[in-house]
Amino acid sequence: MIKKLAALCLSIAMLTAIGCGEEKASTSQADAEKAEVKTFNWRLVTTWPKNFPGLGSAPENFANAVTEMSAGRLTVKVYGANELVPAMAVFDTVARGAAEMGHGAAYYWKGKTSASQFFTAVPFGLNAQEMNGWLHYGGGLKLWQEIYSDFNLIPFAGGSTGVQMAGWFNKEINTVEDLKGLKMRIPGLAGEVLQRVGGIPVTLPGGELFTALQTGSIDATEWVGPYNDLTFGLHKAAKYYYYPGWHEPGAMLEFIVNKDAWNSLPKDLQAIVTHATRAMNQDMLDEYTARNNAALKELIEVHGVKVQKLPDEVLLALKNASEEVIAEVIAKDEKAKKVYDSFKAFSDDVRPYTAISEKAFIEARDL
Amino acid sequence: MIKKLAALCLSIAMLTAIGCGEEKASTSQADAEKAEVKTFNWRLVTTWPKNFPGLGSAPENFANAVTEMSAGRLTVKVYGANELVPAMAVFDTVARGAAEMGHGAAYYWKGKTSASQFFTAVPFGLNAQEMNGWLHYGGGLKLWQEIYSDFNLIPFAGGSTGVQMAGWFNKEINTVEDLKGLKMRIPGLAGEVLQRVGGIPVTLPGGELFTALQTGSIDATEWVGPYNDLTFGLHKAAKYYYYPGWHEPGAMLEFIVNKDAWNSLPKDLQAIVTHATRAMNQDMLDEYTARNNAALKELIEVHGVKVQKLPDEVLLALKNASEEVIAEVIAKDEKAKKVYDSFKAFSDDVRPYTAISEKAFIEARDL
Repeated sequence: MIKKLAALCLSIAMLTAIGCGEEKASTSQADAEKAEVKTFNWRLVTTWPKNFPGLGSAPENFANAVTEMSAGRLTVKVYGANELVPAMAVFDTVARGAAEMGHGAAYYWKGKTSASQFFTAVPFGLNAQEMNGWLHYGGGLKLWQEIYSDFNLIPFAGGSTGVQMAGWFNKEINTVEDLKGLKMRIPGLAGEVLQRVGGIPVTLPGGELFTALQTGSIDATEWVGPYNDLTFGLHKAAKYYYYPGWHEPGAMLEFIVNKDAWNSLPKDLQAIVTHATRAMNQDMLDEYTARNNAALKELIEVHGVKVQKLPDEVLLALKNASEEVIAEVIAKDEKAKKVYDSFKAFSDDVRPYTAISEKAFIEARDL
Repeated sequence: MIKKLAALCLSIAMLTAIGCGEEKASTSQADAEKAEVKTFNWRLVTTWPKNFPGLGSAPENFANAVTEMSAGRLTVKVYGANELVPAMAVFDTVARGAAEMGHGAAYYWKGKTSASQFFTAVPFGLNAQEMNGWLHYGGGLKLWQEIYSDFNLIPFAGGSTGVQMAGWFNKEINTVEDLKGLKMRIPGLAGEVLQRVGGIPVTLPGGELFTALQTGSIDATEWVGPYNDLTFGLHKAAKYYYYPGWHEPGAMLEFIVNKDAWNSLPKDLQAIVTHATRAMNQDMLDEYTARNNAALKELIEVHGVKVQKLPDEVLLALKNASEEVIAEVIAKDEKAKKVYDSFKAFSDDVRPYTAISEKAFIEARDL
């Protein structure tokens, strides 16, 4: 009967990954080990400082959601940048399975595959709502999965910051000439766009922006928006805050999962991971939407920040340069072309309705 | 030993709601019944026709997500309007527990509590992104839960259609005078607004709009937007299609759960329901965003629909009337005042950032 009980215990434990309590002592060591395999303890590495507002909250909230929904059968321990690996090692670490999951942004991995940039942000491209439409109902996520499949990874949309601010500048921007020689931290496609109009793009992790700006080793930087920018104290190091964010209109972050780790999960835990990422994807945008303005007010009213609009002439020059840069990127890489063709077709299709719905409504509200 | 086994089986089954397989035959009938109680088979009644695009997909997708994530421990059977109860009986049906869940829109229940209207749509109020910000990071959902608690219900945001179209008209609207005597199907606060400018608001379920418009028993109707309006064939019954949708800038739907049914769920299934609603909330907006424009194109190119913008004079009159109507609603009902005060404070706070982020970006993109 003990044997029968042990077998029952194991079979239930295999289904449920819940141990058999006091009865476990009566199972064999091998059986117990097999039963224990069904609780999954994952590591999630991120490109953000641990618990960084907004960006760093998403993986923490994801971990909590997954633990709750699985009743502890799947736990996820979150590591901030440099805790387990440096920020820029997240992709490789998850690809080789040294961590089961990661949270970051696809454009950081443009050196691996240039197509990745289109999954984060395209200058003058889609805003958060449109980006989510493309990914989930326009074929975007499927293409993303195809591209990452070569790296043994499964991607999910991992939250959006909404439209970002154009950034912090120590020089007034009145004409395109003012961009010439401007040393600015700006990643992804947007960095190449700046270069094309005469600027000097620099890549730096968020944690180094303040010092770089303060010491004058850069003239300008973009980061996210008021909520995050305030945290880094960028207003203490720069004179002007510019809008609109032409370069990252709905910056989409990513969750990545190692494919072998994914395949080891039973179907119900796979579903839990899938829907948890989707819930967190929404949650991050909600948080930014609610908190950006309070931070903006503090920047203006408490810290005396000057908020300025980029002149149309400058925006037009950046827009033309963006089109040229994208044309070159996709000419060099077939996969990037396939992704951008899908993105562009969706963009051409969605914009006329955005114009008579979201845009026209906001105009009517502001009459 | 049988008794011990039965007890173990039951205790595990209670934790996991998975039956004890072949061993079940050896448990007593009473124990088996108790074990089976832990699989939950819920009914979800909706205010939409079964499988209606967008609106009706959300409850179906929710049901699938919950079944997958719970490995079948919680199943949800979806009933369209009139399958189990009529559309307008959803609230009462779930409140009394005759169905465990419902999907609809809070403003349908303004007769129960006038505060409910602010959780769906406020004329000239918040768009989808802002509405989600208010609900999830601005205290809105907490207030919604307070209001519905009196009815033995727990609400969750249940998807957004985005900005809706102003609707279908058989009469051109050039001045405020043209709204006088206009018989239009338009629910919620917006109906009262129409009345204040001289129109005659009518309440009709979606399924009756086409006939009412065709027979001339109404002069105009709003419904949702191109994707849904095309399904009902409203273009065959009306001459003009007007924008922008001033009346429902980010119509938020709702999932409602009977509180006793909720309390009967173990914590992990409660978490699964919570996060599944959040994922579906995002999913619906993605679908509308992706599909509205294709439908709009078909309406224009295939069916020759004339898309016209409401004159600013008309929009301004509607905006002034909206403010008056809302002031009266909240003067009559303390709970409505509490909810609207929160909504308005969030709105005042979020709009300046929307102006320099989303709005400014779309303008820059369209330069």
